[in-house]
Amino acid sequence: MKKIYLLTLLLLISLSNIAQTDDEKMLRDIFDAALTEGQAYENLRQLCKDIGPRLSGSEGADKAVQWGKKVLSEIADTVWLQPVMVPHWVRGDKETAEIRLSDGTVIPTKICALGSSVGTEAGGITGEVVEVFGIEELEALGEAKLKDKIVFYNRPMEPRLISTFAAYSGCVDQRSSGASTAAPFGAKAVLVRSMNLRQDDLPHTGVQRYKKDVKKIPTAAISTNGARLLSKKLREDPKLKVHIEMSCKNFPDKESHNVVADIIGSEFPDEIILVGGHLDSWDLGEGAHDDGAGTVHSIEVLYLLKKMGIRPKRTIRCVLYMNEENGPNGAIEYAKQAKLQKWQHTLALESDRGGFTPRGFSIDGVEGVQEETLKQIEKWEELFKPYDIHYFDKGFGGVDIGKLKDQNIPLVGFVPDSQRYFDHHHASNDLFEAVNKRELELGAAAITSLIYLIDKYGLEIKN
Amino acid sequence: MKKIYLLTLLLLISLSNIAQTDDEKMLRDIFDAALTEGQAYENLRQLCKDIGPRLSGSEGADKAVQWGKKVLSEIADTVWLQPVMVPHWVRGDKETAEIRLSDGTVIPTKICALGSSVGTEAGGITGEVVEVFGIEELEALGEAKLKDKIVFYNRPMEPRLISTFAAYSGCVDQRSSGASTAAPFGAKAVLVRSMNLRQDDLPHTGVQRYKKDVKKIPTAAISTNGARLLSKKLREDPKLKVHIEMSCKNFPDKESHNVVADIIGSEFPDEIILVGGHLDSWDLGEGAHDDGAGTVHSIEVLYLLKKMGIRPKRTIRCVLYMNEENGPNGAIEYAKQAKLQKWQHTLALESDRGGFTPRGFSIDGVEGVQEETLKQIEKWEELFKPYDIHYFDKGFGGVDIGKLKDQNIPLVGFVPDSQRYFDHHHASNDLFEAVNKRELELGAAAITSLIYLIDKYGLEIKN
Repeated sequence: MKKIYLLTLLLLISLSNIAQTDDEKMLRDIFDAALTEGQAYENLRQLCKDIGPRLSGSEGADKAVQWGKKVLSEIADTVWLQPVMVPHWVRGDKETAEIRLSDGTVIPTKICALGSSVGTEAGGITGEVVEVFGIEELEALGEAKLKDKIVFYNRPMEPRLISTFAAYSGCVDQRSSGASTAAPFGAKAVLVRSMNLRQDDLPHTGVQRYKKDVKKIPTAAISTNGARLLSKKLREDPKLKVHIEMSCKNFPDKESHNVVADIIGSEFPDEIILVGGHLDSWDLGEGAHDDGAGTVHSIEVLYLLKKMGIRPKRTIRCVLYMNEENGPNGAIEYAKQAKLQKWQHTLALESDRGGFTPRGFSIDGVEGVQEETLKQIEKWEELFKPYDIHYFDKGFGGVDIGKLKDQNIPLVGFVPDSQRYFDHHHASNDLFEAVNKRELELGAAAITSLIYLIDKYGLEIKN
Repeated sequence: MKKIYLLTLLLLISLSNIAQTDDEKMLRDIFDAALTEGQAYENLRQLCKDIGPRLSGSEGADKAVQWGKKVLSEIADTVWLQPVMVPHWVRGDKETAEIRLSDGTVIPTKICALGSSVGTEAGGITGEVVEVFGIEELEALGEAKLKDKIVFYNRPMEPRLISTFAAYSGCVDQRSSGASTAAPFGAKAVLVRSMNLRQDDLPHTGVQRYKKDVKKIPTAAISTNGARLLSKKLREDPKLKVHIEMSCKNFPDKESHNVVADIIGSEFPDEIILVGGHLDSWDLGEGAHDDGAGTVHSIEVLYLLKKMGIRPKRTIRCVLYMNEENGPNGAIEYAKQAKLQKWQHTLALESDRGGFTPRGFSIDGVEGVQEETLKQIEKWEELFKPYDIHYFDKGFGGVDIGKLKDQNIPLVGFVPDSQRYFDHHHASNDLFEAVNKRELELGAAAITSLIYLIDKYGLEIKN
């Protein structure tokens, strides 16, 4: 009996060794194909240079949807557009600010309106400035200190955090709810230090949200150099004023689309493995890292499988989400349809952290699903070692796939190196040139490899 | 007896847990200090912007030596200059090339002379071109095909290799011995495809060596775009000619210096832990990644220890080597003195792979020493995990510390991410702006952490 057990064990070990060797070989082939025959970089060039910025509701976003459909039509078995209503906010021509010192000196400073902000009245607004380091400071200051003032949120990102996303999380409330927190105290406008770990002159935009029944006051980002200067000048001259003029405006919602493309599974066509990024971008720059990289990564998964002649067992679905930035209406609509249509998702993976060198994957999902998914994916850790991919842990999956979480779907976030991401995030330097070809390709290969393994072995999650 | 053994074991475990916790805390402090109080980035700015290129024998190199001495004098217990004779090669004003098609069309193309190359005769040289993909092809072609020709080495770096240094190793013989291999067959000049994985217009220089008793023929690098164009034109028009004019020149050797600075050990002052990078750079660009980064990393180890009030048990020695690029005479001289003076090195660590996000360390040394060092350093792997530092393996230590290998000294190479290194290596875009502040600082913290642990625990290597 013991002998038979041992023999079975040996057989299992040797089988798993053979399987291992096949998988090793396949991953090598995927990386080779991505690095020598990939089209991710050329796709990114087209998206950034032929189309450019593509904020929801803009002409660029419409063009990007058509582009995504066209590119995927040459690869996938089916491609369709999923309608979704999206916000339509336009920056407008006027966007200036000045620091006006008590002695009459005027220092122009670069700002950019935050997404969904109202504009100022024509001619702009002028006010004294109250510097704070977080929204929680406002309560103590109260209306007495804040009425008719411009609130200047200046808490910097924490440089000691190794993951820059953690540093972002610790600051972004100043941007997203700074205006709505300041308005009830009578503040007339809000300036927010850009979410950027570097000192430079670029203001970084991003979404802000007006709470219901709160007065909508104009809100803009100031560059990190601008924030440093303003803070210094305020110490020297507390009565200085800032003048802001912005002509940004909200228009009625418009129809746009998620682009959905499938390679139909040969054995389990109803089981869907989703890979996605978002097609929309902010209006500054070209949305190269955010999220042109995730868009072309997702397309590349289908492209590489097709190119290599791999017919997946399960359906591999690429979703190019619309309106992650100031939504996420595309994600909400996709999740709604997934529930209605009873789509069966084996797993959903998102790439929305830029096109940098891959480090690994963060595993998300409701309690139980997350742990079980991590356990199963960790088994493949050794396969990724030759590619310097080492990070497999619990963590956030992504904004878009996050909307599928309560459907008990295992979620995976692609994790590239994060050090340079916020140098470019939502700013005018998020350009094609800021993406390194090899780093982008290695990311596509990493994602394709994981999708390949999940398709081959499936995931056994009780959900 | 068993009980006592168990108790001892438990005590040991709990002690090692305490030690672990102290070490964890110390590494956290080192990273915090590097990311918030470091001077590596400012030092790099000075080296790149106030001094600039610093090829051995140049005025820039002299200035860099004085700068290194000055900066280290404010940190270390002792600083001294170690004299070393270095080559003195000057690029000169003239450096042009043209592709001359049979139909009379002239296409200017960018080249740069390789270090130590002779210039052309005044007015330049013109010749037909033979394209090859490696030095091993020349034998078969022979004098019949090569006499009076310009040999064009065009083997690209292999994109499938994940480490770009491996890809470099597979190509660099074309640059280093291309001219000496071609000259005996009567070739009149050599062009080499730049060691660059990207397609762009920048020629990348680097050292080449004339073998003894072989005719010295001019040799230059052509950009990857230039190489692609020349190759295409050669297929269309095999009789095209290339015209090259270069005024580069070798002068007699000059005296220069390694900069050596010690923080004296409190317990074992005679045991030296060496950390080094090289102060010289190529004359194109600013030598920011190569090896400004390694220079400021090495200084930063001493700076952080001092700043944090850590008095090391052993002597921590920073060596800023002169003449790595077209030497390595500084390394040879240091190793010679080490032997003569019977300096006792616990370990030597080199940073010469750029200022990118740290991935880990490669361990080098003669047989036995390498394995034993890796085994001891691997014990600390878990301590580096919070910083996404995961790579600990056998591998090359570095050119400069390599000269200490036969003295049985354990060697460690700092390994940052390699994907972007050869985009800048030896080219005019190796600029301060190409280095990310956080990536540079994380590297300095990683190196300081390892040096700290080696000082604290020592290494038990039988040598």
